[in-house]
Amino acid sequence: MNIQPAKPFEASAWLNTDTAITLESLRGKVVLLEAFQMLCPGCVSHSLPQAMKVRQLFNEDDVAVIGLHSVFEHHEAQGSKEALAAFLHEYRLSFPVAIDKQSANGQLPVTMNSYGMRGTPTTILIDRQGNIRKHKFGQEDDLLLGAEIMALMSEATVPQETAKASTAPKDGCTDEGCTVPQNM
Amino acid sequence: MNIQPAKPFEASAWLNTDTAITLESLRGKVVLLEAFQMLCPGCVSHSLPQAMKVRQLFNEDDVAVIGLHSVFEHHEAQGSKEALAAFLHEYRLSFPVAIDKQSANGQLPVTMNSYGMRGTPTTILIDRQGNIRKHKFGQEDDLLLGAEIMALMSEATVPQETAKASTAPKDGCTDEGCTVPQNM
Amino acid sequence: MNIQPAKPFEASAWLNTDTAITLESLRGKVVLLEAFQMLCPGCVSHSLPQAMKVRQLFNEDDVAVIGLHSVFEHHEAQGSKEALAAFLHEYRLSFPVAIDKQSANGQLPVTMNSYGMRGTPTTILIDRQGNIRKHKFGQEDDLLLGAEIMALMSEATVPQETAKASTAPKDGCTDEGCTVPQNM
Amino acid sequence: MNIQPAKPFEASAWLNTDTAITLESLRGKVVLLEAFQMLCPGCVSHSLPQAMKVRQLFNEDDVAVIGLHSVFEHHEAQGSKEALAAFLHEYRLSFPVAIDKQSANGQLPVTMNSYGMRGTPTTILIDRQGNIRKHKFGQEDDLLLGAEIMALMSEATVPQETAKASTAPKDGCTDEGCTVPQNM
Repeated sequence: MNIQPAKPFEASAWLNTDTAITLESLRGKVVLLEAFQMLCPGCVSHSLPQAMKVRQLFNEDDVAVIGLHSVFEHHEAQGSKEALAAFLHEYRLSFPVAIDKQSANGQLPVTMNSYGMRGTPTTILIDRQGNIRKHKFGQEDDLLLGAEIMALMSEATVPQETAKASTAPKDGCTDEGCTVPQNM
Repeated sequence: MNIQPAKPFEASAWLNTDTAITLESLRGKVVLLEAFQMLCPGCVSHSLPQAMKVRQLFNEDDVAVIGLHSVFEHHEAQGSKEALAAFLHEYRLSFPVAIDKQSANGQLPVTMNSYGMRGTPTTILIDRQGNIRKHKFGQEDDLLLGAEIMALMSEATVPQETAKASTAPKDGCTDEGCTVPQNM
Repeated sequence: MNIQPAKPFEASAWLNTDTAITLESLRGKVVLLEAFQMLCPGCVSHSLPQAMKVRQLFNEDDVAVIGLHSVFEHHEAQGSKEALAAFLHEYRLSFPVAIDKQSANGQLPVTMNSYGMRGTPTTILIDRQGNIRKHKFGQEDDLLLGAEIMALMSEATVPQETAKASTAPKDGCTDEGCTVPQNM
Repeated sequence: MNIQPAKPFEASAWLNTDTAITLESLRGKVVLLEAFQMLCPGCVSHSLPQAMKVRQLFNEDDVAVIGLHSVFEHHEAQGSKEALAAFLHEYRLSFPVAIDKQSANGQLPVTMNSYGMRGTPTTILIDRQGNIRKHKFGQEDDLLLGAEIMALMSEATVPQETAKASTAPKDGCTDEGCTVPQNM
């Protein structure tokens, strides 16, 4: 993967924060961006608890954890801010969450599309300079993620390429994750 | 617990079945009635997968598995039939589910109230004669539930009292379950 | 599987009991016989904790739980009574355990051989009349085992055939279980 | 914790390696030293699989994983090289393991004593300069351990103090770990 600057968060609303969060305001921190859907089983059982564990383990001055609710199916069930707020409350998820802006043509939400995400969960790591350094669709191992976050924390200024290949789950919505349909 | 006849299912709608299911139509079968909310973590991680395992393990002629969506909080998030349908689809839950009828005064839903349930998940076993034989709030062990279902299957006609005490979780919405607030 | 009378326990020693236990002394009870090796990963992680859970859940007057240490490999590591005693102590296993008698020719231990076991773990259920009603190599589900034990408890006197097919793990020593080599 | 140079490995024998491994030969690498006993439940279920995952995740040129079999109880059951070899084989543990040398007076084994370990499992991290940087009795979280290993990998030459307090399990041999008796 070539190192690329992260794209802006295009949110229609935010939860668990008083103000919208911009990528620029996070410059200097390592950012864990966790794209999810509240009805995605692999997100609920694995990736969201993992993101919350990252929030608890690392200092907020070093590592920002941002949720991205990228609804690409079941809009009527997952689409409202109230539903998401109830979900975050019941699952004790306290980090800021952006609701990914729906596109005008009803296809993939805007941020999901600009990041080229294939489905949920997708785990993104952004370095202190604002570059994307990890993009993984599907569930990630705790030991590896902890190591990757610390590697980015240890960097001063010059980012390097990481060679980790992502193993993608099969098509459809499985325990591993939910895949964007091919025609979207 | 004294043996009591099970109360009727008061449903505003049903999913995963073409027709409404009555208690009378289940006479002669052992019935597992699983009350849940789609945003209740203990239901999603434990009790609903357990109910699905019961569905797969036992013959439909012997054991009926019925879900009861008893929403007593977060109505805007959990209250629609569309949201529940999407949830059942994503979590691969294929047994019939009744949406518990909301009461006129906005308190506990009707069936939940008539059964005296304290929250979700609640696992109810009904014997071949239509009597309630188990009422457990919170998560139940697989080994015990399997034994209890088989004990009821083995019965011919005369039900006996079971002495199993239920261990209830603490107040509030924990991993164990969601408790009905005291003022409801 | 045709119903067959269980074979005698051929033990060189017993632990967790003052006296040797005979099959005859258990007549009238349902018996869970759990064959294991202390260095079999699938036994340690699944089947022995499951047997202990059965011990805790059911009444000793109804259900007997008997361990059978059937060593067919690594005799120097697993073969001593002291090693087994230490193992049972550390893993908090308190039910009686028979050390399966080694055969004169150094092949499979005697009880393992007479039961036709293919490896460890093997879970055997014996009914109140002393007949084998379940023989499963590899790990078994809690819900199913609980149901099967209760089915046998519910029987009065006349045993019936059970049709449950056993799903055997692949060859070799995996997480699932340890298989007896083909030449033994 | 003040930074201290790691003490030598005092081994009576080694497994999974042709030659004895010295601390000096590991200089320049981060070292994970995992002290265990083969009959310690918390070691078997958590810490040894974790050490193996570290072995698989990190490059051998960067991170060395060394097991230390520090037997302080049940010597007759755990004390032989053959028993340990069988254990490592069955649990698929392929990293080098030192058998901690028994002391002349029959107390704690020598390396365990020189490191001041309180029981098993104990997880030790040694930096590229040969200094102890982590000493944790009991089970450790994957996410944290991954981060700590990577932090040490990222260091060039000058070690810094880490402030992580270790949370010790209670006395005795629990799922968490096995504690050295107070009189040893």
